[in-house]
Amino acid sequence: VRTIVVTLAYDGTRFVGWQRQPSGESVQELLERALAEIEPGVKVTGAGRTDAGVHAAGQVASFELAHGIDCATLPRALNARLPADVRVLLAEERPHGFNARYGATSKLYRYVVLASPTADPFDARYAWHVPYLLDVDAMEEALGALVGQHDFAAFCGAGSSTLTTERRVLEASCRAVPASGQPSWRPVALDVPRIVFDLVGEGFLRHMVRNIVGTAVEIGKGRWPVERMAEVLASRDRTTAGPTAPPEGLCLVRVSFDVAGAVSPPVPGTDEEG
Amino acid sequence: VRTIVVTLAYDGTRFVGWQRQPSGESVQELLERALAEIEPGVKVTGAGRTDAGVHAAGQVASFELAHGIDCATLPRALNARLPADVRVLLAEERPHGFNARYGATSKLYRYVVLASPTADPFDARYAWHVPYLLDVDAMEEALGALVGQHDFAAFCGAGSSTLTTERRVLEASCRAVPASGQPSWRPVALDVPRIVFDLVGEGFLRHMVRNIVGTAVEIGKGRWPVERMAEVLASRDRTTAGPTAPPEGLCLVRVSFDVAGAVSPPVPGTDEEG
Repeated sequence: VRTIVVTLAYDGTRFVGWQRQPSGESVQELLERALAEIEPGVKVTGAGRTDAGVHAAGQVASFELAHGIDCATLPRALNARLPADVRVLLAEERPHGFNARYGATSKLYRYVVLASPTADPFDARYAWHVPYLLDVDAMEEALGALVGQHDFAAFCGAGSSTLTTERRVLEASCRAVPASGQPSWRPVALDVPRIVFDLVGEGFLRHMVRNIVGTAVEIGKGRWPVERMAEVLASRDRTTAGPTAPPEGLCLVRVSFDVAGAVSPPVPGTDEEG
Repeated sequence: VRTIVVTLAYDGTRFVGWQRQPSGESVQELLERALAEIEPGVKVTGAGRTDAGVHAAGQVASFELAHGIDCATLPRALNARLPADVRVLLAEERPHGFNARYGATSKLYRYVVLASPTADPFDARYAWHVPYLLDVDAMEEALGALVGQHDFAAFCGAGSSTLTTERRVLEASCRAVPASGQPSWRPVALDVPRIVFDLVGEGFLRHMVRNIVGTAVEIGKGRWPVERMAEVLASRDRTTAGPTAPPEGLCLVRVSFDVAGAVSPPVPGTDEEG
């Protein structure tokens, strides 16, 4: 039996999220169904539990496989059995016992906001349209308060069953980036910069990134002062934060593992997010 | 009564096309429904009849309006009544009798191909995924045969009721462009160049652009020699051309009108396309 990790990209629009749920189709279920045609009964573990509508450009999933198919062939074999909105980009072998969920040392979540009077019909699935001018510098300054080890209870969504709301955030930033690029026919009127939020952390609480972005956008609108982010964090009270930003703007971009790809013991509280 | 033109962008994925049809929702119908809330019974004319699944970044539509709403306010008023995948970008007044269909002097249709082993889940709606290496130079050379006034019968889709299959093509080119850009989380593995085809013409036949691209791709694969494009054109026989490329890669990017925005008489044969 080998331990395999795959890197996946998916458009989360039509899924109930990464994790299997009776209410609809999940990416985990589709991946396990595709694997079942190679070897029955394979169970996969994902590094990040992305929520309904959240995308992934670099989700990582691990599983045990007895079948001898080589890693160069595996992505093609799985992609032939997966729908077009889920693609396996890479498969690699890891030391026995490696687990994508417990082995992950940090994750990069990216959130894209289109601050413009007119929504972009070609970006509706991949950005949150906010019809206000946003002060990017104020949001960037406010995000600085989040870096470090903190109790993020104020940004934790309802229904979370985590043991602790302490998390370590390694980076929290936002910047304006040009919209140029795909689709290559973007009309000039819609060619306005996107505001990209990058959050890097060891783990995230349920809706944590989306609640941080929702709070930052209130600051960007000028409704709240820059200091409000630190005050919300210190309050540990969800009712003080901004609204939860919608899922379509969010993407799990990258999962990092330590160099050895070590087999780590479960870390309490890394069990929810996205 | 004023004559108004609006510039529209839409994601064509879920529509039966620009034109009203009993079989499903069209962009024309949605626009007329939105206008009906301002003034009942307004009929709109589109410059290009895009087909089911084909996008537009710069469709132009004209209509007569008695209501006094000013052109600066009209896009916002219409967008509030339109779904997110259709956006009015601009409204302008034109001389009485101006008609977007008969007044158009040329149109730019753009077709995007992703030639890569792996499809891009974030571009599935906006590019044709071709899992082959394509020779861009060979396709570019082949397209040169199309420029000028020709009988394009070989590229005319079935079911066309056009009076003549003669059309004038002003530009036919293709090039590789970087995929960088939106969505800003595109994984490196999917960050491969797109091949962009630009076709500029006074008017196009039904499926003409998609049949040209389908033929070019056969040449790009190396299945057919560069000369095949000219031979297909000369044959006037649809069965000699390549398969019709799928609609998702196609977009009506721009419609041009002569400087005066002149009121032109109907030109025979400009009545179909997309």
